[in-house]
Formats: sequence, C-alpha cells, structure tokens
Amino acid sequence: MPVPSALSALAEVRAIDALAAGFPRHPGQLNAPHTADCELIPLAPGLVLALSLDQLTSEWETGLFRDPFTAGWVLVQGALSDLAAVGADALGLLLGVALPAGADAAFTARFKAGLDAALAATGTPVLGGDLGGARSLSLAACAVGTVSGARAPLTRAGIRPGDEIHATGPLGGGIALAMVRMLGLPEALAPESDFRPVARLAEGVALAGFARAAIDTSDGPLNALDQLARVNGLGFAVDFDLDALVEPGILARFRGAGAPTWPLLCGELGEYELLVAVAPEDAGRLKALCPAARRLAVARPEPGLTLGLPDGREVAYDAAHVRNLLEETGGDFAAYGRAFAAYGAGLGLG
Amino acid sequence: MPVPSALSALAEVRAIDALAAGFPRHPGQLNAPHTADCELIPLAPGLVLALSLDQLTSEWETGLFRDPFTAGWVLVQGALSDLAAVGADALGLLLGVALPAGADAAFTARFKAGLDAALAATGTPVLGGDLGGARSLSLAACAVGTVSGARAPLTRAGIRPGDEIHATGPLGGGIALAMVRMLGLPEALAPESDFRPVARLAEGVALAGFARAAIDTSDGPLNALDQLARVNGLGFAVDFDLDALVEPGILARFRGAGAPTWPLLCGELGEYELLVAVAPEDAGRLKALCPAARRLAVARPEPGLTLGLPDGREVAYDAAHVRNLLEETGGDFAAYGRAFAAYGAGLGLG
Repeated sequence: MPVPSALSALAEVRAIDALAAGFPRHPGQLNAPHTADCELIPLAPGLVLALSLDQLTSEWETGLFRDPFTAGWVLVQGALSDLAAVGADALGLLLGVALPAGADAAFTARFKAGLDAALAATGTPVLGGDLGGARSLSLAACAVGTVSGARAPLTRAGIRPGDEIHATGPLGGGIALAMVRMLGLPEALAPESDFRPVARLAEGVALAGFARAAIDTSDGPLNALDQLARVNGLGFAVDFDLDALVEPGILARFRGAGAPTWPLLCGELGEYELLVAVAPEDAGRLKALCPAARRLAVARPEPGLTLGLPDGREVAYDAAHVRNLLEETGGDFAAYGRAFAAYGAGLGLG
Repeated sequence: MPVPSALSALAEVRAIDALAAGFPRHPGQLNAPHTADCELIPLAPGLVLALSLDQLTSEWETGLFRDPFTAGWVLVQGALSDLAAVGADALGLLLGVALPAGADAAFTARFKAGLDAALAATGTPVLGGDLGGARSLSLAACAVGTVSGARAPLTRAGIRPGDEIHATGPLGGGIALAMVRMLGLPEALAPESDFRPVARLAEGVALAGFARAAIDTSDGPLNALDQLARVNGLGFAVDFDLDALVEPGILARFRGAGAPTWPLLCGELGEYELLVAVAPEDAGRLKALCPAARRLAVARPEPGLTLGLPDGREVAYDAAHVRNLLEETGGDFAAYGRAFAAYGAGLGLG
C-alpha cells in the first residue's frame, strides 16, 4: 500500500517522508507509513508482530507535563494505546529513560511511581530498556504486541462511505491540559493530576473482530479523524456536539470560566481513546462492548471534514490548516494559540 | 535466571535495578536483566523475538559526537550490534528522532546521510519510528530481530573456566575518539570521521551455532569482559597486549603523540565488535569465520580480571572501580579523566 497522497498536505507528514526517503522497507510489512498506529510485520502464519516507538521528550521540555508522575504514566499508556489501535495483545514495553542531571531522588521516585502505577493498572511487562542521562528528561517507549490466530490487525484504512466513527470514551482530557498550559488558564480547569489516560487494550482486541479501522486520539480527536479521512480518501460529517462528546466535568469548568470550548475537540494533545470505524449495522455491537462509546462522525465520499453544530449550521473545517499551525508558528505556543483561536472565531465556533 | 549478584557492585546496575524494581516481567522471557544484549521472548516453537532499545542522546549532548553523520551512523549500527550479539537476524529498526529547534537543512541532511549510509551498508529496513523536536538532538532506536529454527540465541551467560574470549576485530576505535574529546587530544589522533563501527550481524548469526556466550563492546572492551565475568560468576586472565588487540593506526598515532595507550582497552565507548566465548577447541572455527578475530582473555574460576602485560607482569584490575568512576565524578569529564589516569598509573600501566 503506498502512502496516500492527501497526507502530503501535512507538514509533519512531509518532514517524516523527507527523513525516511530512500530508507529500505521490510518487504512483508502490512502497513505503509502513516496508515496504522503500529508497524505490522507478519512473522508466521497467524502471527503478526505489532511495534511502535514513541518519544515523550517535547511534552516535558515544553512544560505540558510538570509532574514526573504524569510523564511516567503517559509514557506507558501512550505506547500501549498504539497496540490498542491495531487490536494487538501486549507482549510488553521497552523503556528508554534519560534522567536530567539535576534529577534528585524525589524526582526519580515520582517518575517511577507514574511508571509503576500505569504498569500495574494494565498488567504490562517491561521487557527491557535503556537508562541514561540527558540535559532534560528524555523518554522513549517501544510497545511490542502480537495479533494472532484468525484475527487481522486493525489499521487506519478500510473505511467506506456510510461507516460511523465512534470514540471509545469521552474526549477533551488531553487538550484541556494543553489549553491550561498554552493559554495560561487556571490549573483548576484541568488539573494535571486528572490527566491519567488509559489505553483501550481490551477494547482494541475485541473490536479487531468487526471494526473496519481504528486510530488512537493521541494527536487529538479531530486530528485523528482527519488522518482517517486522508488515509481512506474520503471525508466525514462530524457530529460537533460538545455536550455529547466532551468529558462533562471539563466542559462545565471551561464554560464556567468563560474559556473557549471548541478547541477541546480540535487541539493537538489527545486522551488516548480510540476512534473506531464500524458499519452502521455494527454500531450496536460496538456500544455493547464499549458502553461509553459515542458517535463522532459519519464517512462520506467527498474529502474533508464538515462540522455539524448543535444549532444546525454546517461548517467546513480545514484540518490541515489547524494541524500545520504549530509548524507555521515555529513552535511559539503564544502565536500558535492566537492563530488557533482566530481560526475558530472565523468559523463562528465561538 | 535471576540477576547475578556480582553485578550489584556497579552503580549503573544499581540505578537500573532501582528504577525497574517491581516492574512486571514477561513470564516467558529467556534472559534476566543485564544478562543478554537483547531481550529474548519466545513467540512460537523455533521462533524467538530479539529486541533492544538504545538512546544516543548523551553522546551528542556531551560532544562526544560533533558531526550529525556520526550520530545517524552509530544510531543504526549500535542498535544492530545488540542483535548481532544474540545471533539474531535483523527484521528492522524503529527510529526515534527529535531534532533540535536550531537544526537547519544542512544539519538534518547530514544526519540523514549518516542514517542512509548505515542502513544501506547493512541492508536494514526501517519499520517505523517517531519524529519530533527537542532542545537538543535526542535519539533512540529499537532493534527488532528473530532467532529461528534450531539455533538458540546467544546470551552473556554460559561461559566455563578454560573458555577463550575473542574479539571479532581490532579494538580501541571508540575509546580513541572519547579520549580525544575528554582529554582534549588533537583530533588527528582519532578523527571522528574514522569512527564508523559496523555491527557484526553475519558473524553473530554464524557464531550462534557454537559460541558459548557473546556481548558487544559498546561500553568498551574491558567493561564488556567484566560484565561477562560478573554474569558468569568467574574471572578472566586478560592478554593485555595492545599491539595484538588495538587498531594499529590508532595505536601508532597515540604512541607518536605520547598519549596514554592503556585506556584504549579500558575506557567506556566501544567500537561495536563482539566479544565471543568459545571452548578452546572451537578457537580455530572462530578464526575461520572471523579472520580478524584476536584472543582477549581466558576464563578461570576465580572472579575478577587479571591483566597479563607483555613484560610478564600480572596486574589485578578493578573493573568495578573504573566502571563506577563516571558516576562517582558526577559526570565531570575532566575529573573522570584524572581519576581514570591515576588508576592506570597506580597499576603501572604507564
């Protein structure tokens, strides 16, 4: 499968493809770049290896996370979430940890507590790793899993017009924290200690039997939806109903403080739910497996995302513009926040 | 297999074990922590998965490497070297790259050239990875391989008294560069552009049929030998003959400049050769496979390393002292260099 051409509108995709140009590829690999949350390598009949490598350095360096516990927790859950999105069983993790020179025993203990809690909550083995030092906390995790038997791994591809996209749970938890940090909102709106996403491993395995495609929301829900649109060469009509989609406590606090709420679906940091594509007749089966699931969108042949607002308006949403903003503003959070807010205001999102 | 107790003399081992204390383990994993260059997980009869995760952030941040080409080259070869040391066939790599904010097109192109050259030289597929940003170049690589069929993976364990330890090629190339950087020696003694180690993948696969154990020299030859001693609960009589062991060009240049030569085997940065343990009767078979192989040591029941010098002297070598020096000097390269030199002088190594 080649890289879908619609992806090249994204600065991140262009940067990855430029670095990877000419790299040898594994001839048996099931997925093309950008088209699955894990790399999928068949090892034997009925046995596919699922692998992903994530770094968590910039989330720490930019101050998105300030508590080492969060870094440890998200390092584990973020890696496992990639396995969940392909429907893999987790074999375990390899952890790459470079502690900053100034890390004292309390820092290291707090970071370890976050790792420990996430590993215990998910029963995930640590297979090995690398411990070193660096100027600032530098983290990487490699998730290793298998998809075995008659089950085929899920990828981001396979969606047909009419399919429904459901989120496995309430959205906005990641972006709420990012907004607190980037816009300087009060921490009480989205305390970092509330950001404890849980990888949807069991759901991913169960869904692999009948879902058409899946992606996790690590880059934010609408960004993930846009990725599905580009990979599948189609578009989505989005049920842009914050009350139905966003974690109620977060939504209430943001509204109470007069903070903008539409970015809770449109920003960049996710909550590690899955977006799952199913045929309309399988929506009930999905709901039975994931009682917290909620419909986010319906696929249609035309490319692009259209937001259906609760007041009946339909708004064309340029996800590539939003996804390229951080690159275009050179990583300047304040400039990014202003440009982001201006785009939403222009669409009348409030 | 439990973690051998002799390893706890090492500050690095204690730090890793403290971080990993209580982590869930994979019940089928073949290796205990510290006892193999890769994590070894049986997936099916006759199929063992081999995995390692390496970070290469501190080598860049400390200025050991100054050319992004070297960082790209070593990221690939260092990861592959772990597969070589367990006798695995490489499936491919996952690469974690965080480019520094100030990286211009020339920096990125030079880094990519190093990756490209090492991937092409070894024919290694890139399965996937993660591209991000960080304050300084932050790198990780996950190596993925398999050991299949009747072959068993090599580990660091399995050495018996009387076994011979051979290096697969000339030593000292990594430490020579480290000495240039840490002691401020002239770059011409060991130009960074000469440091282009090559993972001994084919040798590892061939040796897995009859070698007793293996380790790569990524942490330096004598440090690797000390690791083998501690894992196996025995010691080594070392043929400490620089003329026989060290890359001749490097040795000649260091001697010509009056620079110390004994650290070329005792320092911390390796050249990614393998140290291979074989029964004495298999030494010829090893030599036939690796014409550049040279004997480094012979195993004996008593713990510790004894250096047999060309002048006939035998010197007890405290590898734990040397390996803990960087930790004890708090990462201060100048203090480390002085303490290191003082230890060698005290032993009369010159």
